[in-house]
Amino acid sequence: MAEKKKIGILGASGYTGAELVRLLLGHPRVEIALLTADRKAGRTMAEVFPQFIGADLPDLVALDDVDWRKAGLDLVFCALPHGTTQLVIKALLAAAPRTRVVDLSADFRLHDLDAYAYWYGHAHQAAELQREAVYGLVEVYRKAVKGARLVANPGCYTTAAQLPLLPLLKARAIDPQSIVIDAKSGVSGAGRAAKEANLFTEVAEGIHAYGVGHHRHMAELDQEFSAAAGRPVRPTFTPHLVPMSRGILATIYVTARRGRAPQDLHAILEKAYRREGFVHVLPYGAVPQTRHVRGTNMVQIGVAADRTEGRAIVCCVLDNLVKGASGQAVQNMNLMLGFAEATGLRQAAIFP
Amino acid sequence: MAEKKKIGILGASGYTGAELVRLLLGHPRVEIALLTADRKAGRTMAEVFPQFIGADLPDLVALDDVDWRKAGLDLVFCALPHGTTQLVIKALLAAAPRTRVVDLSADFRLHDLDAYAYWYGHAHQAAELQREAVYGLVEVYRKAVKGARLVANPGCYTTAAQLPLLPLLKARAIDPQSIVIDAKSGVSGAGRAAKEANLFTEVAEGIHAYGVGHHRHMAELDQEFSAAAGRPVRPTFTPHLVPMSRGILATIYVTARRGRAPQDLHAILEKAYRREGFVHVLPYGAVPQTRHVRGTNMVQIGVAADRTEGRAIVCCVLDNLVKGASGQAVQNMNLMLGFAEATGLRQAAIFP
Amino acid sequence: MAEKKKIGILGASGYTGAELVRLLLGHPRVEIALLTADRKAGRTMAEVFPQFIGADLPDLVALDDVDWRKAGLDLVFCALPHGTTQLVIKALLAAAPRTRVVDLSADFRLHDLDAYAYWYGHAHQAAELQREAVYGLVEVYRKAVKGARLVANPGCYTTAAQLPLLPLLKARAIDPQSIVIDAKSGVSGAGRAAKEANLFTEVAEGIHAYGVGHHRHMAELDQEFSAAAGRPVRPTFTPHLVPMSRGILATIYVTARRGRAPQDLHAILEKAYRREGFVHVLPYGAVPQTRHVRGTNMVQIGVAADRTEGRAIVCCVLDNLVKGASGQAVQNMNLMLGFAEATGLRQAAIFP
Amino acid sequence: MAEKKKIGILGASGYTGAELVRLLLGHPRVEIALLTADRKAGRTMAEVFPQFIGADLPDLVALDDVDWRKAGLDLVFCALPHGTTQLVIKALLAAAPRTRVVDLSADFRLHDLDAYAYWYGHAHQAAELQREAVYGLVEVYRKAVKGARLVANPGCYTTAAQLPLLPLLKARAIDPQSIVIDAKSGVSGAGRAAKEANLFTEVAEGIHAYGVGHHRHMAELDQEFSAAAGRPVRPTFTPHLVPMSRGILATIYVTARRGRAPQDLHAILEKAYRREGFVHVLPYGAVPQTRHVRGTNMVQIGVAADRTEGRAIVCCVLDNLVKGASGQAVQNMNLMLGFAEATGLRQAAIFP
Repeated sequence: MAEKKKIGILGASGYTGAELVRLLLGHPRVEIALLTADRKAGRTMAEVFPQFIGADLPDLVALDDVDWRKAGLDLVFCALPHGTTQLVIKALLAAAPRTRVVDLSADFRLHDLDAYAYWYGHAHQAAELQREAVYGLVEVYRKAVKGARLVANPGCYTTAAQLPLLPLLKARAIDPQSIVIDAKSGVSGAGRAAKEANLFTEVAEGIHAYGVGHHRHMAELDQEFSAAAGRPVRPTFTPHLVPMSRGILATIYVTARRGRAPQDLHAILEKAYRREGFVHVLPYGAVPQTRHVRGTNMVQIGVAADRTEGRAIVCCVLDNLVKGASGQAVQNMNLMLGFAEATGLRQAAIFP
Repeated sequence: MAEKKKIGILGASGYTGAELVRLLLGHPRVEIALLTADRKAGRTMAEVFPQFIGADLPDLVALDDVDWRKAGLDLVFCALPHGTTQLVIKALLAAAPRTRVVDLSADFRLHDLDAYAYWYGHAHQAAELQREAVYGLVEVYRKAVKGARLVANPGCYTTAAQLPLLPLLKARAIDPQSIVIDAKSGVSGAGRAAKEANLFTEVAEGIHAYGVGHHRHMAELDQEFSAAAGRPVRPTFTPHLVPMSRGILATIYVTARRGRAPQDLHAILEKAYRREGFVHVLPYGAVPQTRHVRGTNMVQIGVAADRTEGRAIVCCVLDNLVKGASGQAVQNMNLMLGFAEATGLRQAAIFP
Repeated sequence: MAEKKKIGILGASGYTGAELVRLLLGHPRVEIALLTADRKAGRTMAEVFPQFIGADLPDLVALDDVDWRKAGLDLVFCALPHGTTQLVIKALLAAAPRTRVVDLSADFRLHDLDAYAYWYGHAHQAAELQREAVYGLVEVYRKAVKGARLVANPGCYTTAAQLPLLPLLKARAIDPQSIVIDAKSGVSGAGRAAKEANLFTEVAEGIHAYGVGHHRHMAELDQEFSAAAGRPVRPTFTPHLVPMSRGILATIYVTARRGRAPQDLHAILEKAYRREGFVHVLPYGAVPQTRHVRGTNMVQIGVAADRTEGRAIVCCVLDNLVKGASGQAVQNMNLMLGFAEATGLRQAAIFP
Repeated sequence: MAEKKKIGILGASGYTGAELVRLLLGHPRVEIALLTADRKAGRTMAEVFPQFIGADLPDLVALDDVDWRKAGLDLVFCALPHGTTQLVIKALLAAAPRTRVVDLSADFRLHDLDAYAYWYGHAHQAAELQREAVYGLVEVYRKAVKGARLVANPGCYTTAAQLPLLPLLKARAIDPQSIVIDAKSGVSGAGRAAKEANLFTEVAEGIHAYGVGHHRHMAELDQEFSAAAGRPVRPTFTPHLVPMSRGILATIYVTARRGRAPQDLHAILEKAYRREGFVHVLPYGAVPQTRHVRGTNMVQIGVAADRTEGRAIVCCVLDNLVKGASGQAVQNMNLMLGFAEATGLRQAAIFP
């Protein structure tokens, strides 16, 4: 067997970091060589995430203590907060220019520096890398990802909205002005930081919308939807917090263009994903559930007709920590390092 | 103090029946004189719902064993399945024509017998009563309810959609074709019947839509929306099942008519509900949560602007078992029996 | 109607504070005149707990800004962290010696200053008040509570353990060495402070014990069990965190003394609580559920025989925020202010 | 690569059946050749469990339609209800005597036919097979399992109790009379049958004990504990239902024999499981959580001292559907078919 590639994970004490570890432990071609976590430096991964008791993993170290040159990493996953991320990756690539990077933050997702500045409130600190970065929605940018040094892993909400909508926009099959995305997410999307709003007692036994009318994920949708449609598209998007740990459901309302019926939209999606291993389009009229993709890199999409003629309702589900974050990141890694795309990503869902 | 009114509850072994008992136990002007539950006849209410241990309640009896004439009930709540309900109430009112009835099923909500036949698959069996019945959305039909003998209590989903939308439709402030209602409900809305789909293991840790494109609640919305708008309205409506026991959130997307801004919609709703004790319109931009009305007859409505000009997002929350069912039923009873409307309905929400 | 008593709540932004507000809003004899919350001073209660939108409540103020003399409060509920509590109450009673105080912290529960110092790691700062304080387990100390100026409200776990065990210990019916209390609590017992361990994602879909072998609640149990038994008793007690917001279940294993059978233990408890309004002993062999007392001041106790002769299993359930905290505090207030003991505490449980 | 072994799963529409499919899909040495499910015969597995969309699986067939001779199965997992199981396996082995069987029901766990008749209320219908069956707790009976034709897979509760207690009993380190097992289980242990008691609304937001004092799992514990101790042992055991889908926590109270301290118990367990791949003994004093073994075949055991001298508290966690059922069944299969014991069972836990 070929030698294993050396992988680093920056921000290993968060949920996407832990999920990367979970997936990579079952990956036959890589070894985890570096785990950083500033506040928990010096501890073992098993202390921070006891599900890893018994696994052979390096201890957590502080980011500042890493010597990128000596580390000799083939690829680094960066699961750090946005803002600081761009500085970290800039330094990393300056020191170790041949290391590949998959960034799970939002820092390199927007191509337009002005859009970045508008949504994040400050100028980008690594504009050249921003230009270099490839947007890592594999099903769309597979070819570019293969040759990329820096991949910007898409967001969880936006993956759930893009996979069903991009083929429809490209085919000019729907009215771009009609798009309403009502998205529902599990709480792990909010990360492991201690916040009152994410306490069990605040989240259990209830539901609510947040970021109504203005949410940073919109920037990513605008960019990719506009590219697909060939003209500016600004969808309506409302995220909700659901009392569950994992999963995103995007319920999407669209109006088909004249001459197109909901069945046509279904046919377009079926064709688009016929050969994709991680996207299943359900039979026309069937409705997916988040629990049936839990723990996996799978996406399930359902299309149904509304009773209003020409309006369709498209439901898309994924696991926000897997296809919405760490699984998609591994999928990107597989392409970047020349592995089969699904390596380490074939688990069946945990249900119930 | 005046003598207490004698109340019967048909279908007391279901969740709406139990919720009626909970509310009426705290009501100073009534006594529960009859509880029916066919499959659990002969048992005490405390055996079927142990939260009532210690309460002074009649034992459960079979519906067929009730002599309506002798029962001498002032008012009956009917919490039976649709279909059989119409026959039960027909017999009841034939035998005891002065008894008032609040029906929690869908049997008397539709005025149009053809619409009933379309949605329920059979001709109505009590057409005259159907004509007599008053639709019990108190905030809209208060006056009619006061004089009614038979009130059709609105559905839970439809209450959550009507309260925010009716004033906007009446004011001609929104485009009726634009309405998208993305509704999320707790599991108690499905009742206490043993079904695989409602097992804990099937519902927990996940979310999904159901009845996509075609759901019986639409009939009620069509009727009331069209009446408010003065022309036919057929909204898009998608229900979802959320892993929580109680609560409904309706996230509603509307386009304001030319010349109207989201703030105007907010102002219309604020004005419409200024004097209503059970409907709170939050400050512009604020977003309600189902958990903050849990166990109460309260409704909270929030209005926010979408970034697409003229589009607004309206969120409405209520407790499906209270304002969505038994609380609204008690509110109707209060009017029908001449009590102050809020009697027995002033509890603060249970949160967390 | 008599004039309403003026009530203050210190620490109103926590869950027990909010629960006090919920209960007092339905209490006919009191008005809430003061709400303090240091970090949230200046905000309205409805901003901090939106379930109170529409309620007539004073804004939150900082503790240091209160002039106890001018405040003219009849009774203060103190829902502050232990440690600081003793200083606050000392100052309050020095300035306003005729104000009554119900303290929900652990600061005044232990009579023995050495025990306090052992379990809390520092000398008590208000030793005289410690001597004055009455332990507010109403079913045991009703008479003393009536005349008390300062009542130490019992803990939630300890109430669930004491109510079933004290009558058995007093009757010398069980072997005090045999007591094993396996207790399970909802997450609201941990309060509203933002801690990683209490995030939804850390608590949902799992269970674990904590404080195994050493938990501060033991001190309170030792004191009261020893008093009841007439000799030192040190029970085994293990708390667990359950993925629910409210409720405590104590599953208690005891060995009956020679000549006593589990049925005898049941009979002792039945007799002990026959006239108590808030404690229900279920029929022999029946098992209580926390959900059936949710939101209420009720306690349900079940007794069953183990197959090992002489060993009994006693289950006790209560709502940790009501009988385990704020409801019991109101029960104490009712006695201290001369109201009927159950005033404002008669709600039926919210289930489902 | 060697040819794949042909596997059948009887009862594939239940949760343990689905869990077997999940695990075997990731197993490199077997193929699923037969799936039976009487009520759902004729449907695809993906219709019954949509998490398997895209997997290559045989359709569900009725048990009566299987010709065991022609089926040519190497091994059959039997995930049917107890009682009927014994007849099915009797017929199967009569027709295809060289097929191996792992039975997940309770039918072949008890060696003593009288004990079986006492706990199950009828004489065993396959007494000879009962004698032949090997009890499949691998860590104890590994050698016998390797040569077995029929393995009785242990129960979920009993596995969680046996793994920590058997080494202590064998070492004569604890007083067998002192054992109290307070066990907490997720709802999937109750299966997928539609029962009111397992509805989301009945199980969420609450906890309760059941089967208090008398539960069939006791028979299995008596048998194995007595064998380990060399004399009759009848532990106290109380199961509880926790609002989570997966996981069992057994909190176990034991008294060490004179001369033994809790640390000694920890040392015994550490030594017993040092070389076991699926059992981790945590550092002394650490406490395991069910969520950290979710979806895996792992067991975590913690030992802590009670403050009462000589009493220890042992916590054991596992996933009831994996090590408590289907994972352990695959572990047995691996031994029976000559594979490495951990084949297909190496996934890391899904947390959060």
